Amino acid sequence: MDLVLGIDGGGTSCRAAVATSRGEILGRARSGAANIRTDLTGARASIVEAARLAFIDAGLDPERIAETPAVLGLAGSNVGTYRQQLEAILPFPRCAVESDGLIALEGALGGSNGAIAILGTGSVYMMRRGDMVRSVGGWGFLVGDQASGGRIGRDLLEETLLAYDGIRPASPLTDALLAVFRGNPRDVVEFTTTAKPGDFGGFAPMVFDHATKGDAVAEFIVARGVAAIEASLVVLGLGDDEPISLLGGLAALYAPRLSPNYRERLRQPRQDALGGAVSMAARRFGAGRPAHG
Amino acid sequence: MDLVLGIDGGGTSCRAAVATSRGEILGRARSGAANIRTDLTGARASIVEAARLAFIDAGLDPERIAETPAVLGLAGSNVGTYRQQLEAILPFPRCAVESDGLIALEGALGGSNGAIAILGTGSVYMMRRGDMVRSVGGWGFLVGDQASGGRIGRDLLEETLLAYDGIRPASPLTDALLAVFRGNPRDVVEFTTTAKPGDFGGFAPMVFDHATKGDAVAEFIVARGVAAIEASLVVLGLGDDEPISLLGGLAALYAPRLSPNYRERLRQPRQDALGGAVSMAARRFGAGRPAHG
Repeated sequence: MDLVLGIDGGGTSCRAAVATSRGEILGRARSGAANIRTDLTGARASIVEAARLAFIDAGLDPERIAETPAVLGLAGSNVGTYRQQLEAILPFPRCAVESDGLIALEGALGGSNGAIAILGTGSVYMMRRGDMVRSVGGWGFLVGDQASGGRIGRDLLEETLLAYDGIRPASPLTDALLAVFRGNPRDVVEFTTTAKPGDFGGFAPMVFDHATKGDAVAEFIVARGVAAIEASLVVLGLGDDEPISLLGGLAALYAPRLSPNYRERLRQPRQDALGGAVSMAARRFGAGRPAHG
Repeated sequence: MDLVLGIDGGGTSCRAAVATSRGEILGRARSGAANIRTDLTGARASIVEAARLAFIDAGLDPERIAETPAVLGLAGSNVGTYRQQLEAILPFPRCAVESDGLIALEGALGGSNGAIAILGTGSVYMMRRGDMVRSVGGWGFLVGDQASGGRIGRDLLEETLLAYDGIRPASPLTDALLAVFRGNPRDVVEFTTTAKPGDFGGFAPMVFDHATKGDAVAEFIVARGVAAIEASLVVLGLGDDEPISLLGGLAALYAPRLSPNYRERLRQPRQDALGGAVSMAARRFGAGRPAHG
């Protein structure tokens, strides 16, 4: 039996699925972080571990990963030469390292035209029309990802310190955030010394929660995120009838806040990004599109 | 002869001056970074080295640092317990670790009332009226320091990527920045992976330069910095007749851009921050104010 592997890896964890050459998933597994920009060797180890565990989950010999082609969607693979470096050290006979966005697009849309907005710790937008794929955003926490959880959380910390200094108005939200840090702005700064984007993003649900209650600071921060999403969809040049899927941990929080024009075109994604990686692997290395694709 | 030491330490270098107990400086020296938040032991080593070299510069036995009291102004000393940790391991018989802002305030104002704005890699504002000292800002690159070189540079990178994506207008400045990175936005992102605030700040002069030529993006970024400075001076509650000194690498670039109300109250600082540390050491541990104070 010919098999294919789909891999979805990022800064938090790495998931793998082994499937038939037609894309029917036989086993799945998860391992640790696969951050190819900060730890290439560790990323390789997580990828191999998740792949082996997926074979075991399917009741198959994990040594067979050495004869199984794979499509990997990995955060950070569109920057530098990490992608080429990783492809050189992976144990699969053939493999394709793609961006995490591309496998998410494939999973969400299947064969259709349309767009996705990935709204998680980061934020990135992609659209497909026929063979054309375009993306905007996804430049990371420091200088991009304006609608991401990382930025929402960072904005909250900044607004809280500005409120502490009396430069901008305080609100129940900024009071609540400062209370998390025992009322001490120096503890807020101390947190930022080591916090990763995901740590900042941990405060994003609190911001949306307060926005729902009408908190002025929360509404200001969330409105900026909504504006960033809509500006990105505009530049993607989406047609009026093309569907949009929101993905990522903030998808459900942002969805009701979009303009009606976009809200009425929202579609649930068909599959997740891992399913997208499997579909791509079946199409590229196997016998074609999955049965449910 | 009784001596005192003044130390001015930060993330780039550490300077020391040995002075008489009246504050007359006898020798000066400089050593490497003294970043107590990221490398406490290394900071101690830089401080001791600068102090010993200052004694040598004065023609004095460097072993005498063990009997010389010191005032140290150190970036980061107002956060966490770094200050207490450092005081516990320094070789001076008595010492006081203060914020870098406080020694700069002392140096700039001498005994007078007034305010300072430190506009370098970071940005922080302090005012003194009699015994009262207030400060705002200085919360760091990630969630504060809105007028700093680090933020100006970071803003430029963000605007450049937004222009690349077609979300905001490009300008000669964003074109020039992108050219630095060989026209490749991924190289911009790659830079941000390891860049420190000072690395972002390296682009600040380029922003001011283009603002002078009327570049729209540059003017937008610089205007935001000017607004941050003036908002901070407002909350310090400065009286109409109290002087303001701008310090730091961006001081001369910002000065002509302030509102007339602030511009006409600008004063050259009397001494630098190291001089301020020496004055404080003479007052606290020595025979009083320096002859020129």
